[in-house]
Amino acid sequence: MAHAALEDVRALTFDVFGTVVDWRSSIVGEGQALGARLGVSLDWAAFAEAWRAGYQPAMARVRRRELPWTNIDGLHRRILDQLLDERRLVWPEPDIAEFNRVWHRLLPWPDSVAGLQRLKKAFTITTLSNGNLSLLVDMARHAGLPWDCVLSAELFHHYKPDPQVYLGAARLLDLAPEQVMMVAAHPSDLRAAAACGLRTAYVPRPLEHGPGGPMEPWEEGEFDLVAEDFVALAEKLGA
Amino acid sequence: MAHAALEDVRALTFDVFGTVVDWRSSIVGEGQALGARLGVSLDWAAFAEAWRAGYQPAMARVRRRELPWTNIDGLHRRILDQLLDERRLVWPEPDIAEFNRVWHRLLPWPDSVAGLQRLKKAFTITTLSNGNLSLLVDMARHAGLPWDCVLSAELFHHYKPDPQVYLGAARLLDLAPEQVMMVAAHPSDLRAAAACGLRTAYVPRPLEHGPGGPMEPWEEGEFDLVAEDFVALAEKLGA
Repeated sequence: MAHAALEDVRALTFDVFGTVVDWRSSIVGEGQALGARLGVSLDWAAFAEAWRAGYQPAMARVRRRELPWTNIDGLHRRILDQLLDERRLVWPEPDIAEFNRVWHRLLPWPDSVAGLQRLKKAFTITTLSNGNLSLLVDMARHAGLPWDCVLSAELFHHYKPDPQVYLGAARLLDLAPEQVMMVAAHPSDLRAAAACGLRTAYVPRPLEHGPGGPMEPWEEGEFDLVAEDFVALAEKLGA
Repeated sequence: MAHAALEDVRALTFDVFGTVVDWRSSIVGEGQALGARLGVSLDWAAFAEAWRAGYQPAMARVRRRELPWTNIDGLHRRILDQLLDERRLVWPEPDIAEFNRVWHRLLPWPDSVAGLQRLKKAFTITTLSNGNLSLLVDMARHAGLPWDCVLSAELFHHYKPDPQVYLGAARLLDLAPEQVMMVAAHPSDLRAAAACGLRTAYVPRPLEHGPGGPMEPWEEGEFDLVAEDFVALAEKLGA
């Protein structure tokens, strides 16, 4: 194992959107199929990016209590309604409701399932996502993600990066923060976890926003581990 | 499927202690090993029954707010300390702490894993136990229980049979109560679930309290389904 400090790690908590699953390609794929059926021609990659871009501001409104607690299905639907409105698109309600649930059907990165299976042998593995519990459960069933349990911001009525989420997960797992390692493709998520005392593993996903897309800046040495994918992470953790 | 009303069922929520796992034999087995090591001779079956018997009164104290919220690990430890005290047994603290965690290592009934694997193909399957989350996660890893997620009374700060637990589970699963079926070996648990609108499946476990041990009374037709084990339940649900 890379450092002695990591010997105490018992559980790995995973960010999901972008870290475990490739939201962009999944939305583009389902969008193209829906577009063909409805006779709508759209730039689905741009649509997916706009949908995802609405997510942080929507959570910030919940954090500022401008909105009552609303789970991610609810926030995704508010953003989707607005995107359709802006584009003057009128779709049948059942199609909108079904497309909103594309987030329940996101597909994993190629290494995710194999890496998780290997990591599960040595560590408790759980989601720690802003996605709501039913979304994460549906996704796990659909994608074959072998979680030991499903933890969500919804359980704490706080969204990451609020500390209640990281500390709440450690408490439910009956572990000290330093026995928990947050795994994410987003440096900001890892910094918030580290501020709560969790260990951190950065798994960059350079294709999250498509080839050549933007990535959050980070510095060498900032995280406890850096691994190119979940199989490499298992290797580095001796799992 | 047995009735039309069950066609809407999407998720099965399982009671755990006694329904999925055989707490009595597991405690007797670990107790005997511990007794041999410490040179203590005890009636371990009686000890297991006494430990389990302390559970409802302890939860009732939490329900009446005589105790602040205390999870099952905490309640089990209070009861264990009292049992040792009554028997004038003085064990080393690490042995007491380790024995208290026997509930994390309970072994499944012979049909549990095979039945759950089959039910999982057709339904979302989750715990809905008074056991705390880390206990249920450890047990699932130890016993190979293939849950889609782990739901616990701990998430709601209410113990079954309080309605908050059954309704809280349906809400987190994003299902109406009638889309959720409670599976339990205890009629009282099922009646409380039914009062919240959940469907019910009774799986009697005649050996829960040992051969010829007591079982809660119930009436024919009281539950939506009765099955002799989880494999028979899968059969009856067409899974």
